[in-house]
Amino acid sequence: LPIERAGRLSELAFIERLRALPGGDRDVELGIGDDCAIVRAGGRRLLLTTDALVEDVHFRWRWDGPAGIGRRAFAVNASDIAAMGGTPRFALLSLVAPKRVATSELSRLVRGFAAAARASGCALVGGNLSSGARWMISVTLVGEPCGMPLRRSGARAGDLVYVSGQLGAAALAREILLGRRRGRASETAAFLRPTARLELGAALARARAATAAIDVSDGLLQDLGHLCRASGVGAVVEAERLPYASVLRRLPRRERLELALNGGEDYELIFTVRGQRAERIPSLPRVPVTAIGRIVPGSGLRVRAASGEALPVEVRGFDHFRR
Amino acid sequence: LPIERAGRLSELAFIERLRALPGGDRDVELGIGDDCAIVRAGGRRLLLTTDALVEDVHFRWRWDGPAGIGRRAFAVNASDIAAMGGTPRFALLSLVAPKRVATSELSRLVRGFAAAARASGCALVGGNLSSGARWMISVTLVGEPCGMPLRRSGARAGDLVYVSGQLGAAALAREILLGRRRGRASETAAFLRPTARLELGAALARARAATAAIDVSDGLLQDLGHLCRASGVGAVVEAERLPYASVLRRLPRRERLELALNGGEDYELIFTVRGQRAERIPSLPRVPVTAIGRIVPGSGLRVRAASGEALPVEVRGFDHFRR
Repeated sequence: LPIERAGRLSELAFIERLRALPGGDRDVELGIGDDCAIVRAGGRRLLLTTDALVEDVHFRWRWDGPAGIGRRAFAVNASDIAAMGGTPRFALLSLVAPKRVATSELSRLVRGFAAAARASGCALVGGNLSSGARWMISVTLVGEPCGMPLRRSGARAGDLVYVSGQLGAAALAREILLGRRRGRASETAAFLRPTARLELGAALARARAATAAIDVSDGLLQDLGHLCRASGVGAVVEAERLPYASVLRRLPRRERLELALNGGEDYELIFTVRGQRAERIPSLPRVPVTAIGRIVPGSGLRVRAASGEALPVEVRGFDHFRR
Repeated sequence: LPIERAGRLSELAFIERLRALPGGDRDVELGIGDDCAIVRAGGRRLLLTTDALVEDVHFRWRWDGPAGIGRRAFAVNASDIAAMGGTPRFALLSLVAPKRVATSELSRLVRGFAAAARASGCALVGGNLSSGARWMISVTLVGEPCGMPLRRSGARAGDLVYVSGQLGAAALAREILLGRRRGRASETAAFLRPTARLELGAALARARAATAAIDVSDGLLQDLGHLCRASGVGAVVEAERLPYASVLRRLPRRERLELALNGGEDYELIFTVRGQRAERIPSLPRVPVTAIGRIVPGSGLRVRAASGEALPVEVRGFDHFRR
């Protein structure tokens, strides 16, 4: 079975169809198409998001222990709350498990999920279990915004583009896990143990520092592309400024660039900032942020070498529905 | 592949494990173990519930058109909101679809779901799509309570036990769909087109008429058993008072009883009422309610014939994890 990172191309077409559905609910401030929906209940804003991890599509069961898989399922969903500048409060977990699975494994998965949630101030309040051929871990999170929610749609020409942390290590880790590259077991942690940038997202929302934000799940270029389309702008990325993960140093420049730009699963935040607001960017210990480019008028993404020359990179989002 | 109605036995064990997780979040008023969780966000109560329909476990794709399958996925989940006396407000839909599926089928399923939701005042605000061998339709609903939420745990000895609508037609319909019984196509609607008793649940909560409630998904006896265990009581059901679906008339008494008591998928409401509050039970057009028995001290369920003699019925919950 082919296993690839979470794909979004046909899912994008699907999301477009969902967006075209009749709306008209005045309590839906932002519907389908961003990292979370923004709704109002009892006069207060809530963030709602759902995502699923499917065995042999998004992960393999033997890659990690059940508790680690549960922790990762929480983190990748919490990343969507982080990208909106919120804090996760309540989680629901819908599981499909193969019949061969021991109850103890199921328990460890759920306990890993619940412990990761609890560490972020989020309570697991609902769940269901069905049998099926393969694992499917579907998570819904209810979050509360910290200040004004960050959307994908607020970037304007002239804004600086920032990314948190480092890029490419998760994609390299996935290739090691798939046996396509050699590497140390410790190098797989970047894929298996992602961290949602909840502290950074909340701080950006509180400081009103960012004009737009998104998390890096599909790859820097694809996710920056989503942000640009939602904002009606383009972007130029400076290849030399990208915060390459140190583990990529041993690779040829071309591969390093490819993993950092199109690798995905980093769960870092991309955000845009008006020039004069750069000083508002929160300075958090252990969460470096790097200016990697600039928003420009028009549309499309360009990646530029230090020489100023445009690099011929392709935006590659994996599509697991492609035939 | 064996296909059976939504099973809950091992799921029950799973839910028990979830309940045993550390809690301590003061915004979680009621965690795992009822039809919905009750949480507080911004000082207001919300109801949260999640459930999944898995192809060839809970339904077969060819049994209905995609729009009908979408409508049913909403109704089955809305029934959990109805059982708590709430109204569904926001829905999230996590889909796993086989690669062979045409985009038009996917669209029809989502539109059927969204239309059913909208008709109940609920907006579809989030979704995701993955590929997999079989369909999996995982739904999360966020509801608002109408008055005090109805729980499973408030029944006391002496309360009358009521059920809405009629029983057994959905289970008969499933057997027709499975080819195990002969019947008319029109008789399959009871399975394919369930109605969540949202109006009744909300009216019961507003009138403070019921001491406890649950919906009939697994079967009258099993679900009444959940209510009794949560309340620390037992119950006696009068077989002659059960509101058998008229389509069961042609069956032998024994089979009729079995389908009404253990058939499941009716999505009616079971609720308990203190004797002196029976007059508060809301009278809704086209939603009959029937007193079928009484809560008694102790534990366990008994089913009694008109003669007073106890009928030897077994509480059968289907368990799709059973080997």
